[in-house]
Amino acid sequence: MKLYTYFRSSAAFRVRIALNLKGIAYQPQLVHLPRGEHRKPEFSAVNPQALLPTLELDDGRRLAQSLAIIEYLDEVHREPPLLPRDALGRSRVRSLSLLVACEIHPLNNLRALTYLRQQLGQDEDGVKTWYRHWIADGLAKLEADLARSPDTGKFSHGDAPSMADCCLVPQVFNAKRYDSDLGPYPTVMRLFGECMRLQAFDRAQPSKQPDAMAS
Amino acid sequence: MKLYTYFRSSAAFRVRIALNLKGIAYQPQLVHLPRGEHRKPEFSAVNPQALLPTLELDDGRRLAQSLAIIEYLDEVHREPPLLPRDALGRSRVRSLSLLVACEIHPLNNLRALTYLRQQLGQDEDGVKTWYRHWIADGLAKLEADLARSPDTGKFSHGDAPSMADCCLVPQVFNAKRYDSDLGPYPTVMRLFGECMRLQAFDRAQPSKQPDAMAS
Repeated sequence: MKLYTYFRSSAAFRVRIALNLKGIAYQPQLVHLPRGEHRKPEFSAVNPQALLPTLELDDGRRLAQSLAIIEYLDEVHREPPLLPRDALGRSRVRSLSLLVACEIHPLNNLRALTYLRQQLGQDEDGVKTWYRHWIADGLAKLEADLARSPDTGKFSHGDAPSMADCCLVPQVFNAKRYDSDLGPYPTVMRLFGECMRLQAFDRAQPSKQPDAMAS
Repeated sequence: MKLYTYFRSSAAFRVRIALNLKGIAYQPQLVHLPRGEHRKPEFSAVNPQALLPTLELDDGRRLAQSLAIIEYLDEVHREPPLLPRDALGRSRVRSLSLLVACEIHPLNNLRALTYLRQQLGQDEDGVKTWYRHWIADGLAKLEADLARSPDTGKFSHGDAPSMADCCLVPQVFNAKRYDSDLGPYPTVMRLFGECMRLQAFDRAQPSKQPDAMAS
């Protein structure tokens, strides 16, 4: 398998974790987002959505969108499961994953920040304030949900890592990068710490990717 | 079942369509987003994420996040299926759904627009320009993906409506509301037209909801 990835893409980071948890070897295909390599025709031919990550299967077929890729991997490579076996549990894991993927990350991705700088004339302080606002808004929701539920265990859902943890960890990395105050989210940070003890999460982090060195 | 909904919430609109397609009767629980009813403690007790939609099952258990709700409905009420039977097809439908749910909608939802107005001092022109920018960016990606794939049929995936159509239709409603130019997206608009011929989509639209009248 080939994974089109960029070390700082937190959506690609989610899939790197999932591939590691499943023990699936993959070849990274590096796409430099800040240089706009994802907007070039060569990459549109790979993924018409022009987004990272993109997973290329051994037969050449390609999958887009991190959560759709993780669900596919979980259906085709069953062990260890990244979604629980029961429908309500699966719904909960998806809901926690989507809370990160829909409510926080899109507002803080590269193209939103570029718009703030270029179209709205925001300086770095303005951009950082925006960034931290959505981190705080979203992590407060995630904390409330996780802290209240009896289904939260050693990990986001029970005592094994799931798709929800594949989303939580990259989001916390982003929050740290922008110096967000993480004090108000003790449950989120406990789960983050638990995940980072696992090789699968540790090896997927931005600083350990081949393109991190060259950057 | 109870659905916590607001007529203009496009995430709630997705679930209304799915419930109608499945033929599941539900009781709407109206939550007025512009008045901030979703941020009140009464509603946080219902959904700690403080977001619409929320689905309450007959036994009182509650589900959050539109796509997680639709996946649950599809697993528990199998007919008609809103996701295909094969893993690659399911991945494609999820990818098209997530393209709307992650790449377009979060940038244009109420709280992002409120931030633009209140924190960044944008006037209505500035807000509309932002809104249309993300519609154009996202619908161009959706059009490219749909137009190129042999799997696109009468609907987004094959000849029956799927979760992808539950996402596409509300997004086009939003685009129309903000007078976006929809000329560049002929495939998206063909699918939109096909969907709107179905009662399940028509009855779910904002203007036909009970709270539309009172607004």
